[in-house]
Amino acid sequence: MTDTTASSARPFPLERVPQWDMETHVAVVGFGASGASAAIEAAGGGAQVDLFELGSGSGGASALSGGEIYLGGGGGTPIQRAAGFEDSTEALYQYLLMAGGPDADAAKVRLYADNSLAHYEWLVAQGVPYKGTFLPGKIIEPETDDTLIWSGSEEAWPFSEAAKPAPRGHVIQWEGWGGGRKLVDVLEARVRALGVTVHTDTRVISLISDLDGRVHGLVVRQDGQNRYVRAARGVILCTGGFTMNADMLRRYAPEALRLENPIGTTDDGSGILMGMSVGGDAIHMDQYFTTCPWYPPEGLVKGVFVNRNGQRFINEDCYHGRVSRTMADQPGDRVYLLVDQSLFERPMEFSRIDLAAAGETWAEIEAELEMVPGSLTATMDVYNRYAAQGQDPVWRKASQWLKPLTEGPFAAFELRIGYSYFSYFTLGGLNTLPSGEVLDRAGEVIPGLYAAGRATSGLPRWGHGYSSGMSLADCTFFGRQAGRTAATRLSAS
Amino acid sequence: MTDTTASSARPFPLERVPQWDMETHVAVVGFGASGASAAIEAAGGGAQVDLFELGSGSGGASALSGGEIYLGGGGGTPIQRAAGFEDSTEALYQYLLMAGGPDADAAKVRLYADNSLAHYEWLVAQGVPYKGTFLPGKIIEPETDDTLIWSGSEEAWPFSEAAKPAPRGHVIQWEGWGGGRKLVDVLEARVRALGVTVHTDTRVISLISDLDGRVHGLVVRQDGQNRYVRAARGVILCTGGFTMNADMLRRYAPEALRLENPIGTTDDGSGILMGMSVGGDAIHMDQYFTTCPWYPPEGLVKGVFVNRNGQRFINEDCYHGRVSRTMADQPGDRVYLLVDQSLFERPMEFSRIDLAAAGETWAEIEAELEMVPGSLTATMDVYNRYAAQGQDPVWRKASQWLKPLTEGPFAAFELRIGYSYFSYFTLGGLNTLPSGEVLDRAGEVIPGLYAAGRATSGLPRWGHGYSSGMSLADCTFFGRQAGRTAATRLSAS
Repeated sequence: MTDTTASSARPFPLERVPQWDMETHVAVVGFGASGASAAIEAAGGGAQVDLFELGSGSGGASALSGGEIYLGGGGGTPIQRAAGFEDSTEALYQYLLMAGGPDADAAKVRLYADNSLAHYEWLVAQGVPYKGTFLPGKIIEPETDDTLIWSGSEEAWPFSEAAKPAPRGHVIQWEGWGGGRKLVDVLEARVRALGVTVHTDTRVISLISDLDGRVHGLVVRQDGQNRYVRAARGVILCTGGFTMNADMLRRYAPEALRLENPIGTTDDGSGILMGMSVGGDAIHMDQYFTTCPWYPPEGLVKGVFVNRNGQRFINEDCYHGRVSRTMADQPGDRVYLLVDQSLFERPMEFSRIDLAAAGETWAEIEAELEMVPGSLTATMDVYNRYAAQGQDPVWRKASQWLKPLTEGPFAAFELRIGYSYFSYFTLGGLNTLPSGEVLDRAGEVIPGLYAAGRATSGLPRWGHGYSSGMSLADCTFFGRQAGRTAATRLSAS
Repeated sequence: MTDTTASSARPFPLERVPQWDMETHVAVVGFGASGASAAIEAAGGGAQVDLFELGSGSGGASALSGGEIYLGGGGGTPIQRAAGFEDSTEALYQYLLMAGGPDADAAKVRLYADNSLAHYEWLVAQGVPYKGTFLPGKIIEPETDDTLIWSGSEEAWPFSEAAKPAPRGHVIQWEGWGGGRKLVDVLEARVRALGVTVHTDTRVISLISDLDGRVHGLVVRQDGQNRYVRAARGVILCTGGFTMNADMLRRYAPEALRLENPIGTTDDGSGILMGMSVGGDAIHMDQYFTTCPWYPPEGLVKGVFVNRNGQRFINEDCYHGRVSRTMADQPGDRVYLLVDQSLFERPMEFSRIDLAAAGETWAEIEAELEMVPGSLTATMDVYNRYAAQGQDPVWRKASQWLKPLTEGPFAAFELRIGYSYFSYFTLGGLNTLPSGEVLDRAGEVIPGLYAAGRATSGLPRWGHGYSSGMSLADCTFFGRQAGRTAATRLSAS
């Protein structure tokens, strides 16, 4: 093996390093929200930090996001309290535990719930601006520069039974969608102010490890040359998921390839592969987030979703992404959002949710959608009968979103896998301790290796449980833990 | 690292091997059907072969099976032809391709379809006895010693549209269930006749690899000692899946932990972990097979399955395991099998499928099951209306299994996740070439490493597509390929 054959799939042996071209304490790989947060804390902890980014600047999937962070607990953030919401640590804990699915990471959820308020203060101290205002309703991201929104399934069954609901989505002050770019800019300013050396346009090719499995640094590609970077206290992988790597998707999460709109830039899975190459355990690699923005307008939440067989499949007042993820489980490649005259509004145009049928009766809609006679009409009979009483005994949709769909004409919107705007990103990644240390497949820490964000399986690790702001919460908070842990470790000899 | 810390999660460095305690050409790990087939072909190819088994004898999950192998194509096996079924290679190919799911391994399916007849001849040549008789009907395993059965979803939609149906389950001659033990015995006799050295009660602790990633042998534990085994031409991992390793299930396939009856003995995932430890790619680790034997009696196939919401969710004439896997996708923890007076028969007692409701009308059943009024009754109205015409426009159940359920009294059997007998085993594993060579995460061959059977992701790799006999077909056929490839490779220097 020469260094030209080094790859993310294999570690580079320490014994073959010809020389150290760079020496630092902590090497951070990736300049999104995770990498920036890790670099800030590592530098703040007194370490010399070098940050390596494949692209020409900071960003990653974080910069494509809405800049929204899931925060609360402890009586509520100042913004929650100002809006009249008292949040509890226990409610935040229980909500995130359910949202984490069948293998939620209770230790991370615990640490995050206990420290979410302090994390809010940290974000503010970094310069993240919050207007401080609450925007009610069911929305995806504010069109305004307001702060606090309901960003998950808190008020929807079964979450509403597991934890007292509170709005916890904290959006950076920014007019319109896309505040994630601003968030990364703010963090980047701190990174640079703290003296971190940033290397852009630099591909990290592989980790350098020794026979005992300890990680000592990186092979990076700069100016057409391989360079050997010693990171005496550790490497922190903040490279994002594998959303943009179709070959990895095929091998680990093939169902996601049916969807149209990956959210990512340099999210090529290389950090996950590098972590695995030194024995790191990658878990829940089949899990992904998806959403097709079918609301706003929020009145559509009073509509009814059915699959091609005319069957309902979820309470429509869940978080849009939970509803969308369940759409992907349905037979066939499309589902329908049904409304009556009183609810008729078009979803946002970019969602590519088209009108599929209109008619004076549900029987006409049923026929137009080529459903079996008696299937959709029976579903609507049951729904309307109970909605008139403010009940949904089948899926327990909350009463505020229940209304009988009885005012013709009626309409069906079509959400089609492979055509409509289903955005997605991956949730599987390296198994880490809350400290950011990467675990191997025997559950042992790999010395010198840390990871955060979507290179890990973190707070968000179950597609059916995702809520907006969970990933950035995970990226920033556990990025910080990794940076802090790495900075304070003794140097490798 | 000393040798006492060697583990399946880490390779043991060649540089630290103190001495070779054993030297062989090919080391096979695991003595189920895969390992036996690999050993037979490697020994037959002129190699010195040592086989290492954790247990005290041959067996593995293969010995817990029905000894049924999915065979056909090329005009049909002699047994298919004698029973009047002409099978084609193309039909076998298309069926297995659909059964392999969204990332079916087309290269393996191609090789297997092209060589399935020759594989039948090989099995016969090893001494596997087949009575040669066809047993019609929908059954799981013959209670008799008959050979040929319908063992998958061949006649069920959508498989019936993708490939011309033929029965392909070839069951070893054996009275009653459990012929897998006999199959392994036959193969073991060949292994021993060919002079393979069999080491039982031997735990393989780790692979031995060098800095270039080449595999040179094994560290094994015998008589309380670690011993170093050189395998000059290669190691073949035939260790089965990770069905018996609850910690691996939690990290990779947590949904399977809801089920009650793992099928396995020493299936601890150690071979998958060892393969990964040297860079091997483990794919589709979330996939698992499950079945609750709800037929025979086959008349129950004319019944109707509904979930807790009274919704049908599949054509009931699919393979029992495909129907059962879909049950696990339904909301809640139970589904119901509905029958009328004319169909009433009890499922096998060990299935733990209990009677949950009985009544004179479907409305009574609906009420007794605490379903929403109008939900189940509407489902049955639609089903019965079309069944009377020999049609199922919703799920396309074949007309031979359609009959209106109109003769009261009616009954509902309950299949409950976590209580009823849902057996399961894992389908995720190492990514291999059809030759048996293990691929790393960059798609490169790992020199000196081979794998077969459920330590790999093979022909069966999608829980919704499994058919009986696919796993043993994969184990025996691709075990052979691995053995043959390893035997003919030049020695590592």
